[in-house]
Amino acid sequence: MSHNTFGHLFRVTTWGESHGAALGCVVDGCPPGIRFTVAEIQAELDRRKPGQSRFVTQRREADEVRVLSGFMEDGDALVTTGTPVSMMIENTDQRSKDYSDIARQYRPGHADYTYDAKYGLRDYRGGGRSSARETAARVAAGALARKIVPGLVVRGALVGMGEKGIDRAKWDWDFVRDAENPFFTPDAGSVAVFSDYLDSVRKAGSSVGALIEVIAEGVPAGLGAPIYAKLDQDIAAGLMSINAVKGVEIGDGFATARMRGEENADEMRMGNDGRPVFGSNHAGGILGGISTGQPVVARFAVKPTSSILTPRKSIDADGNEVEVVTKGRHDPCVGIRAVPIGEAMVACVIADHYLRHRGQTGRV
Amino acid sequence: MSHNTFGHLFRVTTWGESHGAALGCVVDGCPPGIRFTVAEIQAELDRRKPGQSRFVTQRREADEVRVLSGFMEDGDALVTTGTPVSMMIENTDQRSKDYSDIARQYRPGHADYTYDAKYGLRDYRGGGRSSARETAARVAAGALARKIVPGLVVRGALVGMGEKGIDRAKWDWDFVRDAENPFFTPDAGSVAVFSDYLDSVRKAGSSVGALIEVIAEGVPAGLGAPIYAKLDQDIAAGLMSINAVKGVEIGDGFATARMRGEENADEMRMGNDGRPVFGSNHAGGILGGISTGQPVVARFAVKPTSSILTPRKSIDADGNEVEVVTKGRHDPCVGIRAVPIGEAMVACVIADHYLRHRGQTGRV
Amino acid sequence: MSHNTFGHLFRVTTWGESHGAALGCVVDGCPPGIRFTVAEIQAELDRRKPGQSRFVTQRREADEVRVLSGFMEDGDALVTTGTPVSMMIENTDQRSKDYSDIARQYRPGHADYTYDAKYGLRDYRGGGRSSARETAARVAAGALARKIVPGLVVRGALVGMGEKGIDRAKWDWDFVRDAENPFFTPDAGSVAVFSDYLDSVRKAGSSVGALIEVIAEGVPAGLGAPIYAKLDQDIAAGLMSINAVKGVEIGDGFATARMRGEENADEMRMGNDGRPVFGSNHAGGILGGISTGQPVVARFAVKPTSSILTPRKSIDADGNEVEVVTKGRHDPCVGIRAVPIGEAMVACVIADHYLRHRGQTGRV
Amino acid sequence: MSHNTFGHLFRVTTWGESHGAALGCVVDGCPPGIRFTVAEIQAELDRRKPGQSRFVTQRREADEVRVLSGFMEDGDALVTTGTPVSMMIENTDQRSKDYSDIARQYRPGHADYTYDAKYGLRDYRGGGRSSARETAARVAAGALARKIVPGLVVRGALVGMGEKGIDRAKWDWDFVRDAENPFFTPDAGSVAVFSDYLDSVRKAGSSVGALIEVIAEGVPAGLGAPIYAKLDQDIAAGLMSINAVKGVEIGDGFATARMRGEENADEMRMGNDGRPVFGSNHAGGILGGISTGQPVVARFAVKPTSSILTPRKSIDADGNEVEVVTKGRHDPCVGIRAVPIGEAMVACVIADHYLRHRGQTGRV
Repeated sequence: MSHNTFGHLFRVTTWGESHGAALGCVVDGCPPGIRFTVAEIQAELDRRKPGQSRFVTQRREADEVRVLSGFMEDGDALVTTGTPVSMMIENTDQRSKDYSDIARQYRPGHADYTYDAKYGLRDYRGGGRSSARETAARVAAGALARKIVPGLVVRGALVGMGEKGIDRAKWDWDFVRDAENPFFTPDAGSVAVFSDYLDSVRKAGSSVGALIEVIAEGVPAGLGAPIYAKLDQDIAAGLMSINAVKGVEIGDGFATARMRGEENADEMRMGNDGRPVFGSNHAGGILGGISTGQPVVARFAVKPTSSILTPRKSIDADGNEVEVVTKGRHDPCVGIRAVPIGEAMVACVIADHYLRHRGQTGRV
Repeated sequence: MSHNTFGHLFRVTTWGESHGAALGCVVDGCPPGIRFTVAEIQAELDRRKPGQSRFVTQRREADEVRVLSGFMEDGDALVTTGTPVSMMIENTDQRSKDYSDIARQYRPGHADYTYDAKYGLRDYRGGGRSSARETAARVAAGALARKIVPGLVVRGALVGMGEKGIDRAKWDWDFVRDAENPFFTPDAGSVAVFSDYLDSVRKAGSSVGALIEVIAEGVPAGLGAPIYAKLDQDIAAGLMSINAVKGVEIGDGFATARMRGEENADEMRMGNDGRPVFGSNHAGGILGGISTGQPVVARFAVKPTSSILTPRKSIDADGNEVEVVTKGRHDPCVGIRAVPIGEAMVACVIADHYLRHRGQTGRV
Repeated sequence: MSHNTFGHLFRVTTWGESHGAALGCVVDGCPPGIRFTVAEIQAELDRRKPGQSRFVTQRREADEVRVLSGFMEDGDALVTTGTPVSMMIENTDQRSKDYSDIARQYRPGHADYTYDAKYGLRDYRGGGRSSARETAARVAAGALARKIVPGLVVRGALVGMGEKGIDRAKWDWDFVRDAENPFFTPDAGSVAVFSDYLDSVRKAGSSVGALIEVIAEGVPAGLGAPIYAKLDQDIAAGLMSINAVKGVEIGDGFATARMRGEENADEMRMGNDGRPVFGSNHAGGILGGISTGQPVVARFAVKPTSSILTPRKSIDADGNEVEVVTKGRHDPCVGIRAVPIGEAMVACVIADHYLRHRGQTGRV
Repeated sequence: MSHNTFGHLFRVTTWGESHGAALGCVVDGCPPGIRFTVAEIQAELDRRKPGQSRFVTQRREADEVRVLSGFMEDGDALVTTGTPVSMMIENTDQRSKDYSDIARQYRPGHADYTYDAKYGLRDYRGGGRSSARETAARVAAGALARKIVPGLVVRGALVGMGEKGIDRAKWDWDFVRDAENPFFTPDAGSVAVFSDYLDSVRKAGSSVGALIEVIAEGVPAGLGAPIYAKLDQDIAAGLMSINAVKGVEIGDGFATARMRGEENADEMRMGNDGRPVFGSNHAGGILGGISTGQPVVARFAVKPTSSILTPRKSIDADGNEVEVVTKGRHDPCVGIRAVPIGEAMVACVIADHYLRHRGQTGRV
């Protein structure tokens, strides 16, 4: 079962609400002997954390991680022992009062109604468990996951925001992590475009969706498995588990529905290192659910933030019809901060499949 | 773990290769007291089975199902006892010789290379475990799954084939199941278009992709769960586990990346029956990973069949560069038969979440 | 979930009832490249099969296994491909009429009442799913499991039957598998004792319990894991899942409750091969849930068969008070045939932990 | 997978080492609407906590629990929301220096060698993850589990210590929880006997094993499942997962190996409330893996503490032969504090099966 857990051998359980005391994760099954520092984990969390620019929520959370178990000190670093790694982040900037107005209202596009329908009650403060704060725990777990597969590099980028896109010819991975880049866009020229666009969206009391691409390089051939442990299936599941994600595709994705067989087939020739070289990567690095050794390419769509200032018609828990205006502090484009979250999920899935592949086959 | 199993309380394990003696599934966790007939399961299998028209593979398999366990007879029907239901389909029309030419070749777009990379050996006959024959087992399991949630109706349709689409204004569910309709298209007017198009594709020795939509009606509000058991996540995983699927979306899906918050929000009012009425269904029936009570809407993209007559460059298991032409018997548009398979996967996922929801909350 | 499945990486799902068409198992996660023959699997099944002597049930089942998937032919043998291995055994000697008398009666000591309490209905013919016939599927899976860990040898023996025991000084593993030994006892001198005893029990219309010991040699140090994947925990679970088992112990087991620390500690010295040598094996080869490299020793108690000719007071499904006499064909000591079943379960658990250990640590 | 997790619908993950900053658990799948107080959880922890008498370790830990997520306030109490309940206990009385002498020594009977064999390194301070401190997290989870099944009462008692036993005729549940009773014995007359005995053991620098019995009343008929989800199997697994446990039995347990069928069968008659009344409970409340409605009875054996002052021969991580004397602070009979731990495990297993049964069958 996996209400709040994902992965099999590299296994992540998260807990915590937006306005509770803290949130965190337990990473079980991490191999022993992985060296890491708290600073490395914190660096990933800092990429996701709120309040970094005017384009994201103004909630001010330090998102400071404490690592509570599963390691020994080893010089300047920590080293995993193979036992569960528990990580915790305290919430410090809750403003529960912001939410008292909407405690009984069902905000359109939110999980308010569905949580009530499921559980008969819910923590309405900041969305409770459905808050994007939960994703901090994923990013912390992902920071460990990145270290499991030797040579693995997982990077993501924002490739679309509402009606605006990027110029893929100007893709620059270094720029994605540039401190001057508030959008994780790989195209420096798009910053001004996205800035103006998002300012106008924000001022209109609205919000906008986004398109994110995650690419994993250094994935050895052979990860994944038929039939219900396909690597693409588990990546899709991981990305769809992120709040507000409504679609996932691998490689050429939805475009393949319009393609012909000869367009879609990635031809192979023999490389000098005795490994195949592919002439293209329509498949996104996965065939039959198993990695080919090419970069694994996934894209996902994030819907516009449902918390908007524009009034929307809805009902409350007592059945009254109401107009909902969501004040609070919100991201006008929640897709921006989804970039490091998407990376974390892909890293976790690949780490898990690496261990599973090693377990069943002993071939890595 | 789930190499060949999916679901938690309603749990399906499949087995079998394209050219082995048989294939089948074990459905564990089916509630007791579910009445069914073998004819009902066979009817679903007949919708998926090959050889039904010139537009699908000419392999002639009866796909006759035997139900081996988990039931008692009850008048004209069978009734589940709560123990595992094992179902088996014997393979009868294997032609392994068709494949001797390509036993050591890696067909572009196929799982040949990746299976070898993973396991060090593979059953090359008809794709072995990676064959679409495995999906017959899913359809059999889905036929049982359809009976778990009272009032549930899961239906799918082909909504695009290559460059060709349908007129959604002419959507007719009855026509989808019409014996004269070889494409599961809901638009009668599209049959001639798809026929001509696919004939030309087939004659060109090529293949083409497709777009399928599955809609589940009668899903009670409250199914699914935060965070890693989201209903949309599990549907996405289920659909991505189908061979050749490269993308999945829920509700407005990828289109939401271009939308604004006020466009995307589904407004609510109070219905006469004390349940909310939604003004739209951009969310595809799921908010925060939990069903709203609206129809659950999923779409998935199927890539063009990789088995084509057009020669493609590749390598073989000995590292030689080769030209691959795949003869055998193949679907020029494997997406057509994906319609009943997609329905089956959605039905299984919903059945599982229904039981899980009942387990945790006791609320259905 | 695991209603009818056990194991994680080496994963066994069984299905089938006593009086259905067939029973079987699906072994998922078996590593690729394992060579085996159907004859090897059949040989294990023949050890468990009924009708072998007057001391076991007279039901005549060939228990002939068919292997349906997951392999390629390789000379005289088969070799696993890494995909699920499905095995099936047809039932041939059902006599459902034997059970019509007791269709609505709850036999004391049987699962009749509890199945009805759980499911609201049950397959009463031969105990349905609760029949010991299910264990044939475990033995088939165990035959594969034995081949996963290089050098592993798993052997079991009957060490007690009712009031009678064996002389451990005369332990002879070869004799356990001797065709003249109907009891799997390791002490040739005990055969006459057990024979006379069991004849008298049988003639009295009664039945008797038994004590079985299973020893696994060649288990590498390091298998198992804290905290809820202890090797002894999973062995205990595996053995307790066998019908009629009421107790399990590891190493000195219950006797340790009466011991002092210095008696119980297994002292260590350094061996010539650079591995520790233990002075004793009170721990049964497991410390802190992880194997030490010593033989793993488990014992389990099997209760007397509940199907006896002596009348017992009970009730029926309509609430009437009845006297139950169970005719049919039954083992007077079901513990005898539990020996190969216990071996199979221990082999499966060790195979699973070997793969899990390799997955997490890469150290085998 | 379940390295550090157990349960399926009621699912407990624990983390933390003896000498780390903290330890804790995440309880996932707890039904919504369960009312509880932190004081109730603390009360259970106080029963297990060290330093309560001269008969247990003198480590002074407050074992103060913080509940971090998964609840809303509801008057004086808390109420679960259905999201994961995270609980944490900070370690406050670590004395890591006590262990520097044995950092590289393998203490006989401990998990020192096996952890190194598995992981290649280990946290030697206080046993790290293998410390009994981990069990505090189980007790916290168990305190919630007790509230899931209406009317369930789970109680345990020490029924044997080394060579000494109790008089079962004097069984008094109230006395078990009496503050004057340092042993959880149900027989007031045994306190003096156990005190004298354990004082002599302790003064001799030795330790001693124990036998614990746990009885669950109010378990509805129908919990558990064939074949690999037997209630007794999961109870056995849960109890065997407790440190130092070497044997588990249900009902008459190992004694049934010596019994005849007519002795062992629990006869039934019809009760006035329309439910069966059993004439005895040899089965310990479970038949065919499913609860009968009678009290569920389990016993487990705890080996003597391996940490003793008597020198034992062993080796160290460098292969040197050494004499080990374990100073530190230890329980001379770790079995005493195993009583509340055993109760917690049984409560968690029953809660999980209750939810699973409700999920599959809808019958509670």
